[in-house]
Amino acid sequence: MIRAGLVGLGKIARDQHLPAIDMIDGIALVAVASRNAQGEGVNNYPDLGAMLAGEPDLDAVILCQPPQVRYAAARQALLAGKHVFLEKPPGATVSEVDALIALARQQGVTLYASWHSRYAAAVAQAKAWIAERTVQRIDIQWREDVRHWHPGQPWIWEAGGFGVFDPGINALSILTEIVAEPITMLSASLEVPSNKQAPIGATLNMATASGATIDAVFDWRQTGPQTWDIAVETDKGILLLSEGGNMLRLDGDVQVKAPDEEYPTMYRRFVDLVGARAIDADTAPLRLVADAFLCGRHCPTADFKD
Amino acid sequence: MIRAGLVGLGKIARDQHLPAIDMIDGIALVAVASRNAQGEGVNNYPDLGAMLAGEPDLDAVILCQPPQVRYAAARQALLAGKHVFLEKPPGATVSEVDALIALARQQGVTLYASWHSRYAAAVAQAKAWIAERTVQRIDIQWREDVRHWHPGQPWIWEAGGFGVFDPGINALSILTEIVAEPITMLSASLEVPSNKQAPIGATLNMATASGATIDAVFDWRQTGPQTWDIAVETDKGILLLSEGGNMLRLDGDVQVKAPDEEYPTMYRRFVDLVGARAIDADTAPLRLVADAFLCGRHCPTADFKD
Repeated sequence: MIRAGLVGLGKIARDQHLPAIDMIDGIALVAVASRNAQGEGVNNYPDLGAMLAGEPDLDAVILCQPPQVRYAAARQALLAGKHVFLEKPPGATVSEVDALIALARQQGVTLYASWHSRYAAAVAQAKAWIAERTVQRIDIQWREDVRHWHPGQPWIWEAGGFGVFDPGINALSILTEIVAEPITMLSASLEVPSNKQAPIGATLNMATASGATIDAVFDWRQTGPQTWDIAVETDKGILLLSEGGNMLRLDGDVQVKAPDEEYPTMYRRFVDLVGARAIDADTAPLRLVADAFLCGRHCPTADFKD
Repeated sequence: MIRAGLVGLGKIARDQHLPAIDMIDGIALVAVASRNAQGEGVNNYPDLGAMLAGEPDLDAVILCQPPQVRYAAARQALLAGKHVFLEKPPGATVSEVDALIALARQQGVTLYASWHSRYAAAVAQAKAWIAERTVQRIDIQWREDVRHWHPGQPWIWEAGGFGVFDPGINALSILTEIVAEPITMLSASLEVPSNKQAPIGATLNMATASGATIDAVFDWRQTGPQTWDIAVETDKGILLLSEGGNMLRLDGDVQVKAPDEEYPTMYRRFVDLVGARAIDADTAPLRLVADAFLCGRHCPTADFKD
């Protein structure tokens, strides 16, 4: 049984991590470290340092804080010999995650950079279907209402908070999973509200190694129905992944439509990884985001009020 | 003898590439492709496509255009079976360079992502000195006058043009050469003129894997004496690399002060690489720049007029 401590008891921890840990054998939550919040039925600490000091038998640390502080916490936990589960994005920079991978290897512990959308119900089947075809064009539409999904999260609008790339990186995590070839970022434009540091909208122009065009639109201003779609045109038919990867249509016919079980599946994976002292930390989605910021044209847009 | 064609006959090509090629055995310039300029004593073409069509015996292509168009040209040259020499930065994104590396490998040709500052006279000695010591702190000051070094180069201020990271990446190329440990980008601030896309100033906070702090300041508003310094504090003395790597002081005593022979040294290296059909394309400096843009806080600053 993995004795786990969770750091950062915010929305994603309560909505997803706590129920998933409850559901999965092999892992139990014994402690929470949070500045303002208290976990029920566990030991509570103000921060990671106090938790590590107070729980010498802890096996693993689950990091759910904003990405800006994830690296320092992960480094501290790895240096204490703990296995580490990183909520996405796994760091504020790619080189932070590279450093954590090297440190986990040195310490002989598990590092899991989780990408929940890769565990959506239809992703594996989409990957298998694409593997037998030639990709000709991909179109990504990732449109949601930031006020609904990220209320009261000022960090997400700060530098290193990713803005609309916080959901957008989910699309990129699916893209880099279902397409076998490496993806190249060619150009981007970033719509940044005048009163914020991070983009509220983005358009990306990418390509596969063999030259197929990939266009993506991320938008956080979508009220009404939400859209998380990836359409893949191939030499032998059209694939549409929707509902963030939980629904699959092939040439228009629904093949998969399943409820989201992403986090329980991830915790099953984490238990297996810890058993094997293995590292699973793919930086491909984060590298594409860094490239989008590197080459992206900044387009100032209207102030955003929460 | 390598028959080379150069694309982009701008300032860096005239100042550095043409004299260096002239000086080095084993490579000869036979053609130039440039929209507006003409090379002397060579065949001239309006673009790379025309040059490839008109010079079937060309062995290698040297790409000196702005980084925003480097990827498409490099891909075209590699697909035509040519060896490729990339001026720095080697692309507008990291994933572009990764794709070029994969393509060069597939084609069995040389790809050289050149980092001229790594060939400055004192860099190798600095690296050897640091290798026997423990780094405690590094301070980088890279301050120059953009009006002097980049007159009439609007692309450098556009998205993908790097701004002050165009010289700053030289410092990062030396840093990642002389320090054996991987470098992690922790935070950054970017001063962007209100009328430009790219920063005119930047401060970076980095660390080595073992935790030593690295601070860097890049500034393009330095008139008068220019500063390209890297100071390294170790457990056994202080190193100061200045003049962009061409001067070395150890504990205050000058050890090396030599003229800049970076480009001739690079062309000697390119001739060797082509002989071995080898690839030399380290993306470490570019990855740090992408990370700086990813996590960097944008600070608007005064309009810049050329």
